[in-house]
Amino acid sequence: MKKLTSIQNSYIKDLTKLQEKSRERKKKGLFLVEGKREISIAMQGNYEIETLLFVADLFSPLELKNNINTTVEFIEISKEVYQKLAYRETTEGVLAVVKIKELALNNIVFKNENPLVLVLEGIEKPGNIGAMLRTADAANIDAVFIANSKTDMYNPNIIRSSVGCLFTNQIAVGSSEEIINFLQEKNIAIYSATLQNSNEYHKENYSKASAIVVGTEATGLSEIWREKATQNINIPMQGQIDSMNVSVAAAIVLFEAKRQRNFSI
Amino acid sequence: MKKLTSIQNSYIKDLTKLQEKSRERKKKGLFLVEGKREISIAMQGNYEIETLLFVADLFSPLELKNNINTTVEFIEISKEVYQKLAYRETTEGVLAVVKIKELALNNIVFKNENPLVLVLEGIEKPGNIGAMLRTADAANIDAVFIANSKTDMYNPNIIRSSVGCLFTNQIAVGSSEEIINFLQEKNIAIYSATLQNSNEYHKENYSKASAIVVGTEATGLSEIWREKATQNINIPMQGQIDSMNVSVAAAIVLFEAKRQRNFSI
Repeated sequence: MKKLTSIQNSYIKDLTKLQEKSRERKKKGLFLVEGKREISIAMQGNYEIETLLFVADLFSPLELKNNINTTVEFIEISKEVYQKLAYRETTEGVLAVVKIKELALNNIVFKNENPLVLVLEGIEKPGNIGAMLRTADAANIDAVFIANSKTDMYNPNIIRSSVGCLFTNQIAVGSSEEIINFLQEKNIAIYSATLQNSNEYHKENYSKASAIVVGTEATGLSEIWREKATQNINIPMQGQIDSMNVSVAAAIVLFEAKRQRNFSI
Repeated sequence: MKKLTSIQNSYIKDLTKLQEKSRERKKKGLFLVEGKREISIAMQGNYEIETLLFVADLFSPLELKNNINTTVEFIEISKEVYQKLAYRETTEGVLAVVKIKELALNNIVFKNENPLVLVLEGIEKPGNIGAMLRTADAANIDAVFIANSKTDMYNPNIIRSSVGCLFTNQIAVGSSEEIINFLQEKNIAIYSATLQNSNEYHKENYSKASAIVVGTEATGLSEIWREKATQNINIPMQGQIDSMNVSVAAAIVLFEAKRQRNFSI
């Protein structure tokens, strides 16, 4: 088995760049996943593992070997190399080099006749995207669409804050126009969270196919989402500070939809 | 007007300690607030400003002088001193030294006949506490109780992540026993978020006086909250990852309560 102990090694340097640069991830078609649990979830989500790097003192490759494709290369690394590559402050001692999925709209398949989906427009903060992927998993919604993304979905901060939910949700990335066309073709009603010309969210009925659309806290949704909405919706704000965290807002509306569906679809 | 330009100045060193150490804040009975908006909100929340420190190039004391008590001392500081004291990456150039409030249970006054309150037990992460204070403000609930607090409420990370909502909510800190006694005396029903022996949250009625109680993601609520609950509640988790961010969970239940109250109380 190959063993790499120097952070000067050219392969390790290439992996470091994968952690740091979206451009490198796109060029190589690869990203890194840390931790046994996250790697297992990625495999369950049909992500293809290329290489598994582990610190022998901390992790036995046998822990994953039975579940893993035989084409996966195992490489032992030193603690120093692990610390250079690891993004989180964990001592699990295992990292996987994983192939990027395309996240294309035409790969989305709905099993549910009345899908419930979440659309995130222009959200930049990886922590907010990760938090909403967690909520989307908890509510077991049918897909998450990322419109006009300013952040690569394989950003290590998204992977970390999603606690693996990047791999459990059906996700597609596209322009707002592409996503709106897709939703309209599938007869999915568009509920855009915005203050202008909007109804209170809890007065709408989300039991048919529905998309909940949220934008950034600073600038809100762009014009096209307000224009093309089946209905604009708002969450009544009754306090002194007139703002709400976007991931909290998304959760409130999604779980109202789930409640109306009696958590059965 | 006094002017302080050195980070070696003993008063500035004392203020630095207020930012860094809970013990110092308690000893002096003081904490720091950054930014004009946050300082204004603190004043509206009847917090007493002792001293206002500002960088003359960035902030004119006249912007606040008309609204401020005449006993407040104004001190001009250098940019270097400001950067030493400021916790956020802002360039507003104004900081206030503010007197701590006691946050005692017996200071809580309910104007609402059927109060809706949030109880946070043992939550450590300032970011989660701040996020829940924002939600509590948005929902305009009647009080937030902090049980068995491991984090001083005047921690600069709480102030920052609450975006001023530390000052807009009625807050009290106490032991779980004290808070339970208080709630029982006032006939406030206790809904403890926990998996054991619990009903789904949306099947309960929160239109009478209600307390929603949440604990840490890692260990959940302690035994006493489950025992003393009027009803334990859970949010159905239908995904692959069996966990939810505590501030998201609190928002889902609080807004279900608000929906049942038709956002009118």
